Amino acid sequence: MELNGVAELPEIRPGDDIAALVADRAALEPGDVLTVASTIVSKAEGRTADLEEYPVSGRAQEIADRIEEIAGEEKDPRFAQAIIEESSELLIDCPFLLAETRFGHICPNAGIDRSNVPGHDLLLLPKRPTESAERIRTGLEERGIEDVAVVVTDTCGRPFRHGQTGVAIGWAGMPASRDWRGELDRDGHELGVTVQSVVDELAAAANLVTGEGAGGTPAVVVRDWEFGDHEGSEELFRSVEDDLIRQALREWRFDE
Amino acid sequence: MELNGVAELPEIRPGDDIAALVADRAALEPGDVLTVASTIVSKAEGRTADLEEYPVSGRAQEIADRIEEIAGEEKDPRFAQAIIEESSELLIDCPFLLAETRFGHICPNAGIDRSNVPGHDLLLLPKRPTESAERIRTGLEERGIEDVAVVVTDTCGRPFRHGQTGVAIGWAGMPASRDWRGELDRDGHELGVTVQSVVDELAAAANLVTGEGAGGTPAVVVRDWEFGDHEGSEELFRSVEDDLIRQALREWRFDE
Repeated sequence: MELNGVAELPEIRPGDDIAALVADRAALEPGDVLTVASTIVSKAEGRTADLEEYPVSGRAQEIADRIEEIAGEEKDPRFAQAIIEESSELLIDCPFLLAETRFGHICPNAGIDRSNVPGHDLLLLPKRPTESAERIRTGLEERGIEDVAVVVTDTCGRPFRHGQTGVAIGWAGMPASRDWRGELDRDGHELGVTVQSVVDELAAAANLVTGEGAGGTPAVVVRDWEFGDHEGSEELFRSVEDDLIRQALREWRFDE
Repeated sequence: MELNGVAELPEIRPGDDIAALVADRAALEPGDVLTVASTIVSKAEGRTADLEEYPVSGRAQEIADRIEEIAGEEKDPRFAQAIIEESSELLIDCPFLLAETRFGHICPNAGIDRSNVPGHDLLLLPKRPTESAERIRTGLEERGIEDVAVVVTDTCGRPFRHGQTGVAIGWAGMPASRDWRGELDRDGHELGVTVQSVVDELAAAANLVTGEGAGGTPAVVVRDWEFGDHEGSEELFRSVEDDLIRQALREWRFDE
């Protein structure tokens, strides 16, 4: 398996065609996986916003006040409002906001980025990243580049472990997971591992190449990797029913 | 960045020298990262066990009874006992066991594997995987192979997202994380991403190559990847104080 960053992508602007920009710079081959950082997908889709676009609701003001009171941290209530509007549920609302986006991804601040947006206050995640991935894949096909899977990535932290890793938030041209159930190990035993989230592993691998900052390459080509002859699954985000941690969080409130 | 599985490793037995077995089969170079699946590290370290070695405590019996009562699933109380003995804390004890191992890794069943152990009931995780990684690294050095980082990997599920991914449980020759704090993006803004868990990303990437089952390659060589000129951190596992999810779980009990 080989990973290479797509060199010399320009700063992405609203309306830019990511498929075209990548196709001009990388000799994609059938079977490749192209990972694309959500930051540039969002920029191409014009998903920037300004804090003044978010008139503060009672709930947003309450959240900001409580974070300031308990955590001693200033939280702009308009930022809290933006997170609420991008979310279907807040799993934690103090001392930070852990949100489920409308497409099911759970991450701090609904993935809204305050660092990466020249000329604006906020960069929102793509609205429907799997549709974004499909559009990029279709754009490649229109340029004669067939059979390239596309994974839209984010980086976020997680429970239990320090630090952030690359994760997938949208994908096209391949299933999210490999299902190993029923397959056997060397000794003929059924496997302990059941479902392998390959899109997340591809996103994590790509993030090692992407880097951040001035030298970053937000698109990465993965070559000589195969999904292989396994059952696939399209599920990536757990529902509340499937997730004891989410159930526990519903009954819990932070208290300093 | 390039990843290649180490081909034709034999079935690993207690006392086997993993550094020697890998060095004989892969032309390692300075700067490479060698990932090694915990299953073979455990086998080499003789970390197999049988259920009859675990006389059932009151707590283990209680856990097994409650899982059977509430989840309707048969749980061998000796297996519950093994998990208790391998753990420093049970974060969830019903309807499944989520445990913190004595070295800080949080995973179902304290990572004890019931599928991968010819001749025994259980394969425990290595006792101190970072020491295992250091031993392998030293073993390589003794064979004249300098400057190869070693990551011992596990696969496990996680909250919020379906499926399992490769994660690091021990590492040597490199820090666990890159710290990007204070570094700037293309536009001169401070970065939103702060700490990147590169050992987990390397483990995830390697797991795409490792596969499972009969064709699996439990050791993978990562080439042409650099930690780079960043601050590093050795922290990977969150403590309770650093983890709201762990705090929430302490106040929660599963109730069907």
